[in-house]
Amino acid sequence: MSKLRVSIVGASGYTGGELIRLLLFHPFVDILQVTSERFFGKPVGKVHPNLRKRTNLKFCGLDDLQECDALFLCLPHGSAQKSIDRFKALAPRIIDLSADFRLNDPLLYEKWYKHPHERPELLSEFVYGIPELHRERMAKAQYISSAGCNATTTILGLYPLFKEGLALPDRTVVEVKVGSSEAGNKATAGSHHPERSGCVRSFMPGGHRHTAEMLQELAFGRDIRIHFSATAIDMVRGVLATAHVFPGKPLSEKEIWQLYRKTYAAEPFIRIVKERDGNYRLPEPKLLWGTNYCDIGFALDEENNRLVVISAIDNLMKGAAGQALQAFNIMNGFEETTALEFPGLHPV
Amino acid sequence: MSKLRVSIVGASGYTGGELIRLLLFHPFVDILQVTSERFFGKPVGKVHPNLRKRTNLKFCGLDDLQECDALFLCLPHGSAQKSIDRFKALAPRIIDLSADFRLNDPLLYEKWYKHPHERPELLSEFVYGIPELHRERMAKAQYISSAGCNATTTILGLYPLFKEGLALPDRTVVEVKVGSSEAGNKATAGSHHPERSGCVRSFMPGGHRHTAEMLQELAFGRDIRIHFSATAIDMVRGVLATAHVFPGKPLSEKEIWQLYRKTYAAEPFIRIVKERDGNYRLPEPKLLWGTNYCDIGFALDEENNRLVVISAIDNLMKGAAGQALQAFNIMNGFEETTALEFPGLHPV
Amino acid sequence: MSKLRVSIVGASGYTGGELIRLLLFHPFVDILQVTSERFFGKPVGKVHPNLRKRTNLKFCGLDDLQECDALFLCLPHGSAQKSIDRFKALAPRIIDLSADFRLNDPLLYEKWYKHPHERPELLSEFVYGIPELHRERMAKAQYISSAGCNATTTILGLYPLFKEGLALPDRTVVEVKVGSSEAGNKATAGSHHPERSGCVRSFMPGGHRHTAEMLQELAFGRDIRIHFSATAIDMVRGVLATAHVFPGKPLSEKEIWQLYRKTYAAEPFIRIVKERDGNYRLPEPKLLWGTNYCDIGFALDEENNRLVVISAIDNLMKGAAGQALQAFNIMNGFEETTALEFPGLHPV
Amino acid sequence: MSKLRVSIVGASGYTGGELIRLLLFHPFVDILQVTSERFFGKPVGKVHPNLRKRTNLKFCGLDDLQECDALFLCLPHGSAQKSIDRFKALAPRIIDLSADFRLNDPLLYEKWYKHPHERPELLSEFVYGIPELHRERMAKAQYISSAGCNATTTILGLYPLFKEGLALPDRTVVEVKVGSSEAGNKATAGSHHPERSGCVRSFMPGGHRHTAEMLQELAFGRDIRIHFSATAIDMVRGVLATAHVFPGKPLSEKEIWQLYRKTYAAEPFIRIVKERDGNYRLPEPKLLWGTNYCDIGFALDEENNRLVVISAIDNLMKGAAGQALQAFNIMNGFEETTALEFPGLHPV
Repeated sequence: MSKLRVSIVGASGYTGGELIRLLLFHPFVDILQVTSERFFGKPVGKVHPNLRKRTNLKFCGLDDLQECDALFLCLPHGSAQKSIDRFKALAPRIIDLSADFRLNDPLLYEKWYKHPHERPELLSEFVYGIPELHRERMAKAQYISSAGCNATTTILGLYPLFKEGLALPDRTVVEVKVGSSEAGNKATAGSHHPERSGCVRSFMPGGHRHTAEMLQELAFGRDIRIHFSATAIDMVRGVLATAHVFPGKPLSEKEIWQLYRKTYAAEPFIRIVKERDGNYRLPEPKLLWGTNYCDIGFALDEENNRLVVISAIDNLMKGAAGQALQAFNIMNGFEETTALEFPGLHPV
Repeated sequence: MSKLRVSIVGASGYTGGELIRLLLFHPFVDILQVTSERFFGKPVGKVHPNLRKRTNLKFCGLDDLQECDALFLCLPHGSAQKSIDRFKALAPRIIDLSADFRLNDPLLYEKWYKHPHERPELLSEFVYGIPELHRERMAKAQYISSAGCNATTTILGLYPLFKEGLALPDRTVVEVKVGSSEAGNKATAGSHHPERSGCVRSFMPGGHRHTAEMLQELAFGRDIRIHFSATAIDMVRGVLATAHVFPGKPLSEKEIWQLYRKTYAAEPFIRIVKERDGNYRLPEPKLLWGTNYCDIGFALDEENNRLVVISAIDNLMKGAAGQALQAFNIMNGFEETTALEFPGLHPV
Repeated sequence: MSKLRVSIVGASGYTGGELIRLLLFHPFVDILQVTSERFFGKPVGKVHPNLRKRTNLKFCGLDDLQECDALFLCLPHGSAQKSIDRFKALAPRIIDLSADFRLNDPLLYEKWYKHPHERPELLSEFVYGIPELHRERMAKAQYISSAGCNATTTILGLYPLFKEGLALPDRTVVEVKVGSSEAGNKATAGSHHPERSGCVRSFMPGGHRHTAEMLQELAFGRDIRIHFSATAIDMVRGVLATAHVFPGKPLSEKEIWQLYRKTYAAEPFIRIVKERDGNYRLPEPKLLWGTNYCDIGFALDEENNRLVVISAIDNLMKGAAGQALQAFNIMNGFEETTALEFPGLHPV
Repeated sequence: MSKLRVSIVGASGYTGGELIRLLLFHPFVDILQVTSERFFGKPVGKVHPNLRKRTNLKFCGLDDLQECDALFLCLPHGSAQKSIDRFKALAPRIIDLSADFRLNDPLLYEKWYKHPHERPELLSEFVYGIPELHRERMAKAQYISSAGCNATTTILGLYPLFKEGLALPDRTVVEVKVGSSEAGNKATAGSHHPERSGCVRSFMPGGHRHTAEMLQELAFGRDIRIHFSATAIDMVRGVLATAHVFPGKPLSEKEIWQLYRKTYAAEPFIRIVKERDGNYRLPEPKLLWGTNYCDIGFALDEENNRLVVISAIDNLMKGAAGQALQAFNIMNGFEETTALEFPGLHPV
């Protein structure tokens, strides 16, 4: 089989770097081009220093983009919807890692992003990029819109409960703890080390536009609420979501186990993590650095009929590049785990 | 005025060390004795290295304790209730920093601690140690039971709302993020640096016995629930509580400001922190290291009629030694802020 | 006694913030003005969030500066020498925290800073700001130039040996480990948290212009070399210097003890730290956060006739604001430790 | 080709865990057994949580060990020399990751380890485990003794210079900065998070017995000295060595480049890292987490005719499990990089 020629647009950011790292090891892919206006002409290893001596690729400009088999778009928000026609002309398959095409409903987009979508008629052509929810549609799709990292963590943790209608629809509270790489590779006053180090910063206490994705994927026709907060902690990679769910009627620990096992039994990247003892009784993001796993666990607060669901990912992997590659594998009929085999490190 | 002679029982732990640090600078106090069985005879600076060259005190044994004006008890849980008669014979004023005398109701104690209290008749003699709630009783008290660190953070954040009955009683979800010093100075498998570093550990996902204190102090005659979780993060000192409160009816930002300002206007150790921009728009525990502040802020999620209250402390200070000293100052008629003036560091 | 009126020029940086924090507690000082062009009109607590509710001071502009009793200059390198006449007209005493007036010799200045000094004739009016070396001159001085943080750590560690001529003059290797606050409060690509976190960055492997200060202070007429390197590690505050010294003839541990004890016996801010066991056998910068201490210890490698001297400070304190205040106290005849009593925290 | 059956003795430690992780992906190896007395019968994923869902292996006891094609020994110091006959009877090839067989000379062993070696006659059968120095002997060897992590970092950094006799033999000073995983997985007072976090601990200021390996490998018949210090910093994985070398005669930057390029040109795991700008101008250990690289860079201090060589590794990989597997690949005629392809993460 000849290899697929794949290009990455906007490849100098953290997500682009992870995609390059992953694709370099993909047995059925050749990276054709990687673009960056800012680092035009520079070798990839200059920007992604972990890839020194691993590739001779150099960044080219957007204008140099050639036809290829698939395009990954890692552009700032708003850019993909502006240039989508051009990208469609270049490649039959596109995976967009921005937020541009995540919402199916143009009105919802406008509500959450405060401006009308530029190409509302295309929203329905994109499959929302969580394979565990949309694998079958992905297999036939041309266009995929990768899910946000906080949304992925939350949705995968809650999906079994919401699908079965087992959570009171207006009661769920979700608190995510996130690392600094989520905000990208641009230095800002907020990312200055003496300020960001050691912080426990309530940067999105009362909600976040990524909630829109959660509502879209978890509603199943109901009018649901996700009471969302995000806290930035001293960590580079990783998201941990703590979801407080209130089932309408008491659920036993056994029932919950069965529900999650049934839903995710065949999933290669989901592990149910709930042990009796040890330091890693529940999901821990640092174990997932570099991997495509979403680990999910739970605890039952019987006194209050509350179910606490804990889910963790690496935001640059299952929350971005890894999940995009998983979707790409599905689209192309490859084994889903191809080039996503790294199991993570311990200790770290 | 002659100085008060004060002793600290169990002074080799982190809380004991902070008490020594503070009392060394108290203009109206002489530290008489500090006890530690394990470090008997050793100089204080050997165990608390920040105090090298600051004191010549050495640890003595429990059996060497002499009569004094006040005793601080920093013993492991269960010890104070066992030996309370002896301590009462030694000093007219006692501040117990363990959980032994925090709950007023012996039945509640038994429910949460899974064994009967040894001296239930004494519970009513202890004033619960949050000055902002019980200042007047403290001024006349002989015995004070210091509040837990997670409880202090949560109670101070929620008190104005619960006192006024402005929160739906069964809906509040509280997520605390805590540092490693909360677990004390004994090395354990869980505190081993390669494991504890970088962790986001859901160690109390479904509740915690310290919830009992919150219920006691926030009920005001109602049947309330606090849906509590605790997550350990990579930090030594500090607690940040994120409380999701659902008011029965919509509250405006202005009303909330007024409520918190009114409640805490005269409080020397409470700051309302809510700014429009910058890295420190909301409370940040690292700014509080070494101080006795509780910073409180909030965010309104109008879409969902949710109020998110954020409060932060240094667990060893406002959550332990600092608050105990604040109570001691009140008991003895000293200016409340005496020896608690340190404003904290930035950056750190 | 009426209080001295003191102003801080360039008070929005980290060093300026520390000076404000310290001076707010100085019993003989009133802060008259603090300047910042960027934060003109803003309250101090907006920039230095630890000082919220501690001061009502607002930043004024350079042009608003009034006459006062003493000026602290915390300006970027090069500014003080440009405007020194104006500052001299405003205040009889000046402490400059920049590098402008550290070197006594204009030729040396030109060699290390690559441009001629603008006011070479003034260099001799400034006393180099390490009190342990120049206390007597300071007591009579009008102008003091604060020492650099890496230089202070290194000089204090090596001073007893070099003064006595006990080190081979060309052999000493010094490796400092430094935190991120040393580079100031401006966000840069290098201070971006995902890059700076967890780093062990050899940012000055082959030397540093601050070496010039070390040579000036340690030469005692000899032709000496300091082989200096600096490595940035994941820490906000703190410097630890490891100095490898080769005595010409064998020195016993006892002789070294005696030398250091004799030199520093009366010093309020120097502690000899060398214990047989425990985690804090040798100086540890984190214990010094917020303090003005320089802790010094040593280890003897008898096999190689090498003496390893370890010294640690808080770069913003003994390496900047704290040492400047110590000098100010000496200049004004105050107790040297005034407003510098904070002993540091443990654990932290 | 049928796969080799390989067992790991003492597989519950950090090094053992890394070996399992690596060997699970080795196309020519089946892991036959992994032993642990403490975790006997437990699944590997319980101890090495990154391997959950990646293997069904369980720990067996030492007494259960079967014959196999190769044994990796990850036992505490002293155990391998005690039981070596038994291990030799079980497998034709042994890689010992302890310090037991690193020194060729029994007298040197006794000098540094303070007790006679139990099987001095076997020392010469073991090849010292740095492939870049002993690849040819390894290819024919049965027994390999893995090098220490600090020794590996230092030796690889200095080897080109010492081999060519370009360093003054008695002048080299080496300072390594190390993470907490180097001390193993047992919790101690020194590894307690509140103490170990944020530390800059001079734990081996005046030398270390691993210096013996450096002297052995770098002497080339000369009487050399390595003035070694080790400082523990707040990091889990990683070693960075800063070596201060004094060439007898001036070396130009170009000559040094040529020397290192020539020496290491064909090495798959050595990268010369020396760039003009950016955050990663010189080796950075965090980029190497999980990889088998040793990155080497240098800076020339022409003023002092000093050459500073900086080298970095992941102590559990190139400093232990990775290098052991590299040696194993060589012994067995496999491509040297087999199962060692992971390029590391950025950011992290």
